[in-house]
Amino acid sequence: MSNDKIEEDMEFDLTPIFRPESAVVVGLSQKNPFHPGNAMFTKNLMEMEVKTYGVAPKYKTIEGHKIYNSINSLPQIPDLAILAVSSRHTLPVIKEAAEFGIKGAIIVGGGFAETGKEGKKIQDEIVKICRDNNMPFIGPNCVGVYSPPVLDTLFLPSERMTKPKSGNVAVISQSGGVLVDQFFINFAKREIGISTAVSVGNKAMINETHLIKYFEKDPKTDVIALYLEGFNHGDGRNFCINARKSKKDIVVFSGGRTSAGKSAAGSHTGALAADNSIMSGAFKQYSVINPETENELRNTLKVYSMLANPFRNYSTMSIHGDKIAILSVSGGHGVLCSDLLEKYDLSLTKFTEKQKDDIGFLLNPTASKIAGLNNPIDITGSGGNEDIVNILEYLLNQNNIEMVLILIVPQVPQLLMTLGRDIVNLGNKYKKPIVGYVPWTEKFGLIREALELNHIPCGNTIEEAVQMAAAIKLKGEGGIRKKFSHNSL
Amino acid sequence: MSNDKIEEDMEFDLTPIFRPESAVVVGLSQKNPFHPGNAMFTKNLMEMEVKTYGVAPKYKTIEGHKIYNSINSLPQIPDLAILAVSSRHTLPVIKEAAEFGIKGAIIVGGGFAETGKEGKKIQDEIVKICRDNNMPFIGPNCVGVYSPPVLDTLFLPSERMTKPKSGNVAVISQSGGVLVDQFFINFAKREIGISTAVSVGNKAMINETHLIKYFEKDPKTDVIALYLEGFNHGDGRNFCINARKSKKDIVVFSGGRTSAGKSAAGSHTGALAADNSIMSGAFKQYSVINPETENELRNTLKVYSMLANPFRNYSTMSIHGDKIAILSVSGGHGVLCSDLLEKYDLSLTKFTEKQKDDIGFLLNPTASKIAGLNNPIDITGSGGNEDIVNILEYLLNQNNIEMVLILIVPQVPQLLMTLGRDIVNLGNKYKKPIVGYVPWTEKFGLIREALELNHIPCGNTIEEAVQMAAAIKLKGEGGIRKKFSHNSL
Repeated sequence: MSNDKIEEDMEFDLTPIFRPESAVVVGLSQKNPFHPGNAMFTKNLMEMEVKTYGVAPKYKTIEGHKIYNSINSLPQIPDLAILAVSSRHTLPVIKEAAEFGIKGAIIVGGGFAETGKEGKKIQDEIVKICRDNNMPFIGPNCVGVYSPPVLDTLFLPSERMTKPKSGNVAVISQSGGVLVDQFFINFAKREIGISTAVSVGNKAMINETHLIKYFEKDPKTDVIALYLEGFNHGDGRNFCINARKSKKDIVVFSGGRTSAGKSAAGSHTGALAADNSIMSGAFKQYSVINPETENELRNTLKVYSMLANPFRNYSTMSIHGDKIAILSVSGGHGVLCSDLLEKYDLSLTKFTEKQKDDIGFLLNPTASKIAGLNNPIDITGSGGNEDIVNILEYLLNQNNIEMVLILIVPQVPQLLMTLGRDIVNLGNKYKKPIVGYVPWTEKFGLIREALELNHIPCGNTIEEAVQMAAAIKLKGEGGIRKKFSHNSL
Repeated sequence: MSNDKIEEDMEFDLTPIFRPESAVVVGLSQKNPFHPGNAMFTKNLMEMEVKTYGVAPKYKTIEGHKIYNSINSLPQIPDLAILAVSSRHTLPVIKEAAEFGIKGAIIVGGGFAETGKEGKKIQDEIVKICRDNNMPFIGPNCVGVYSPPVLDTLFLPSERMTKPKSGNVAVISQSGGVLVDQFFINFAKREIGISTAVSVGNKAMINETHLIKYFEKDPKTDVIALYLEGFNHGDGRNFCINARKSKKDIVVFSGGRTSAGKSAAGSHTGALAADNSIMSGAFKQYSVINPETENELRNTLKVYSMLANPFRNYSTMSIHGDKIAILSVSGGHGVLCSDLLEKYDLSLTKFTEKQKDDIGFLLNPTASKIAGLNNPIDITGSGGNEDIVNILEYLLNQNNIEMVLILIVPQVPQLLMTLGRDIVNLGNKYKKPIVGYVPWTEKFGLIREALELNHIPCGNTIEEAVQMAAAIKLKGEGGIRKKFSHNSL
């Protein structure tokens, strides 16, 4: 794959692909309502901001909308061509698009390199044409791009999808299914916003390195998240070097970590999934954050997308993760949280005797008789709002504490629903990271939303809260490493 | 603690505690609306089926309800006394209750053994009185019992709690907070039903062994779930022996697994949390299932509570976990699921060449060109309902497959919302375990609910589905071990 060297040095303008003003969908069917082209044509025409044309050789209208018989007959040169035609029809369409002056393409169809020699030959010819014409393309064999509110080339009907809100996370996925499912649904559920989502497919021309370079300069993007099953030959090192150069947080979720998964990934993408184990090691060295589970991925992205907000930028603080306090309403919650801290390589501060006395003195008389005053603090079900606020302020003032996890159990009668706001005020005053836990039920939303709308991360489970704390620590470490890397590269 | 030996041999009738027809709450306040006694009195009076009396020395009514000035003046002898008085008032009340002929008690107040020598002395006296009068009690220092629809002695206001439905899982917790939060909320969310929930507190008289013996005979209970931070001295072995004797599934979630957690548990319950690491090892040997995370706990209980239903009792099958097939709509889902199988010690069947050919032949022509036919099968976004049904039936007919994980991505245009029903019909016909995955959004409820209402477990994440598959395997193993244990004990 000697072409890879050339690619490394080429710079492509991907704006026509991700933020086109006009686009054409080529490949539509009057017979098959499930045809990918039909879904893409109608949803871009009716739901998105891009000016959309449809091209099919034989028809005049589809579902009542005017369509054109060729790219040449369009009334303007669109920025982007979206191809939903079979592999054998792709080559002539790409030629026509390039000659017409279109600046970028998305090829969703399969039947290329992933199916063998013959498909690989067509794919290589397409790459040559697009290079010669400086017309970058995404794919083939992918579900395309979602770039709200401009463009949505995913061939899945909108009503079946869960679309996340617009936001600051760019997503790059080697699986269209994982993109619309694990990313989109989780993002919508946890209110994580997307700047642009890309299904890369075979990565014949544009690969993850081109994409992180593009998103590095994209003002809408603060965090870059990837689902990767492996790199094409030689691409891994290049990716890592560019990731280290990046000032933005880069988070990679890897499929194919185990031997069973590797073998499955080999069948799925045909990529060099075996590289993956080496990559996992390299990621750490190159400041790429590499969560192990879907939950860790989601919580890491939630925290990073929140912390990019200038109103609460913990990334300027150096959190080492070994000076943590837990303030809990329930002893059992404190125990479970302590177990999880150890699992995530975080550790509790040991309180001094004076600190324990001080905390006991701050508690109401009933609670102070039965409370646990070691770290984790257990104010018990007899504790109330005032106890939490007073102790939290005390903790934030201590030098041996750099982060407070506050485990709220709002079932307790004396906790007020204004607690979220009270915690936010302390967070603003002391500028130390606070991570909340609030049980995931609708009725406790008043507390949870007060925290999250004010950029204090809040887990729905104790494990989520701990994963968020771990992400804050990692961000500090990544930031430090990146600072050095920028100097040396 | 020489008393423990006596306890082992004593048999207590706990029915008056868990299924009383009448109860008295002792300890109410006209001044403090948050007083635990007030919450317990009003909720049992107004929401539960138990006939409820209130006792307080000085008042005639509280919130408009008649109350009595002493236990002696009650118009009947209630089955159960619920004590919400301070530790120093507990002893005379317990004496009065025993002399009046009450058959069981729940002591919610704190200030006993957990606070030191003096409290321990009172606690021991209470135990002596209760033993002499054959009046078992739960607690002290606990949130009590929830036994729907009869009794609810938790002092948390009903409107703050999330109560699970009535069902077949008995819950025993060493933390009241974990009981009402991790158990109740998760149970409600995943539609797991509770037979009886007990917060054991200091376990001064009734401990986890008495409770599993009681629930062993309780016809409402099929599964016994515990949250434990440690055993009182000498109780661990006794618990394990009785757990092995039990014909019911016993699932223990342990707090205090790590050194940080152990130290926190020591402060919380004062129990011998250090025993815990030994216990974890012993649990396996004694057929106690010991999930590591809250998610594993929830999914294990979901599966066991479903499988207790005679319509789909997988526990009679022996599942070894090494002959699994994955049928997926998305390649990435197959990869992530394969990774997780390895993590949970499950493994994929290797398909024969004939099997791959057969599966390819069953697929629609478009999908068959791009599908992955190895295990995991990836029918791709071009697959539809018929493809899934045909392949699933084929898989269930194969000798080298003992369980099928079916990863449904209903975003794909050609999947019908009748798919759940179709899978259920195949499950009924072939009697092999099927575990589903359906992304957790409301709109895919038609598929998810068709599966779960018909006793086919269905995960909301791929990891949940894999944890459910692992639980089915463990149940088979546990069943086998228990069979031998019954013979040898």
